Amino acid sequence: MLQSKIAGHYSQAYDTQLHGIVIRVLEMCSLVKKQLDDALSAFIDGDRELAQRVVDTDRRVNTYEVDIDEHCIDILVRRQPAASDLRLVLTILKIINDIERIGDLAESIARHVLQESGERPNSAQINDIEEMGTRTRIMLRQALESFEKMDAADALDVLQQDKAIDNDYARILRHSLTYMLEDTRQIGRSMEIIWVARALERVGDHARNICQYSIFLSKGYNVTHSSDDEMKNIISGND
Amino acid sequence: MLQSKIAGHYSQAYDTQLHGIVIRVLEMCSLVKKQLDDALSAFIDGDRELAQRVVDTDRRVNTYEVDIDEHCIDILVRRQPAASDLRLVLTILKIINDIERIGDLAESIARHVLQESGERPNSAQINDIEEMGTRTRIMLRQALESFEKMDAADALDVLQQDKAIDNDYARILRHSLTYMLEDTRQIGRSMEIIWVARALERVGDHARNICQYSIFLSKGYNVTHSSDDEMKNIISGND
Repeated sequence: MLQSKIAGHYSQAYDTQLHGIVIRVLEMCSLVKKQLDDALSAFIDGDRELAQRVVDTDRRVNTYEVDIDEHCIDILVRRQPAASDLRLVLTILKIINDIERIGDLAESIARHVLQESGERPNSAQINDIEEMGTRTRIMLRQALESFEKMDAADALDVLQQDKAIDNDYARILRHSLTYMLEDTRQIGRSMEIIWVARALERVGDHARNICQYSIFLSKGYNVTHSSDDEMKNIISGND
Repeated sequence: MLQSKIAGHYSQAYDTQLHGIVIRVLEMCSLVKKQLDDALSAFIDGDRELAQRVVDTDRRVNTYEVDIDEHCIDILVRRQPAASDLRLVLTILKIINDIERIGDLAESIARHVLQESGERPNSAQINDIEEMGTRTRIMLRQALESFEKMDAADALDVLQQDKAIDNDYARILRHSLTYMLEDTRQIGRSMEIIWVARALERVGDHARNICQYSIFLSKGYNVTHSSDDEMKNIISGND
């Protein structure tokens, strides 16, 4: 991980302190990726023990967020970083917020597993969530890689995967409504599936935010509300 | 509004520039408060014209966010503010994110109105949303006031209103499931109600975040993951 572009991005002057923060951010990213993987495995296998572990681990994610946030503010106060160092600190302040929210969403998926009242989702529902979950996990992993590599072109590619996740969500919603209409005994279980799909859809949104911050970090432009074409221009125009 | 504590908070040195940003933030707050009010009115009255206005206005909210964000970064780069000025800039950078998300949620409520396929929710459902909506609007207004007044004790009081909003959501969810079980023709409509309630519940979460940032602004402590008791200690210990 230390070979990543971001780990060598900051100027010599802030070496130790910024290096320490970047390491903490990358650790936090790994932890949250694992939280999402585990939450999905727990859901697919109905593994309550694993689900409980995800819930218990959320506190560690929160600790990372507060700790990194405080260190970033400390750098701003005491070092007054300029140019790309400042951009790195500001990006980290924003990105840890999204990463922490992804941790919350993984925790809420795990809580659904713990609250299941015995009856499991049927295999078609499990397949739907597994497929959407795989897509979401891949998008999150690649979003975090684009941040770590400070690769704006990669970030833009990854960001566009969010549409497929939104489509998955719309499909699962349609399926669930059909199940409910066919059999009212399916209502509770179908609602569970909708919540989990909704959580994954929101993970996709946060991964999209992470990609946008990666573009800001590497190009210096705020693209939060830019269209895909505007982002393409920013990325190619500055390359 | 210019009489508010926050508008006189910053040191003389940054007067014009920080003053301008604070004004923009307060304008953005007013706009988003109105967006939520209008979205709820549009939902309650089935007013498609008003709903369309809310959707159209979202672009203005986004412009505020990008514009304020860029000005904050400009201040950090060129002025290197210290102490309470720095805290103000950092708080603004965080708070505009939550305000913009509240705008998105108001927009999504308005889009539900535009997508209604003719049949309106029944009066009990409208009442449920109206009650929850009123609570959420009050919480948002008071959260923004606590920020404007930099009043940590007020912020803590407001923050605790989020529990009542979560309870509203749980109640609406229960009612909706009952409707669906009783009559499958209610499923589509009940799902709409659940989405709107869920959007309000998330507005409550963002209002809670705003309160936490207000405590940070006035006390200098990050209380994002603190318990109510810890926050009470922080606020009384520093008063």
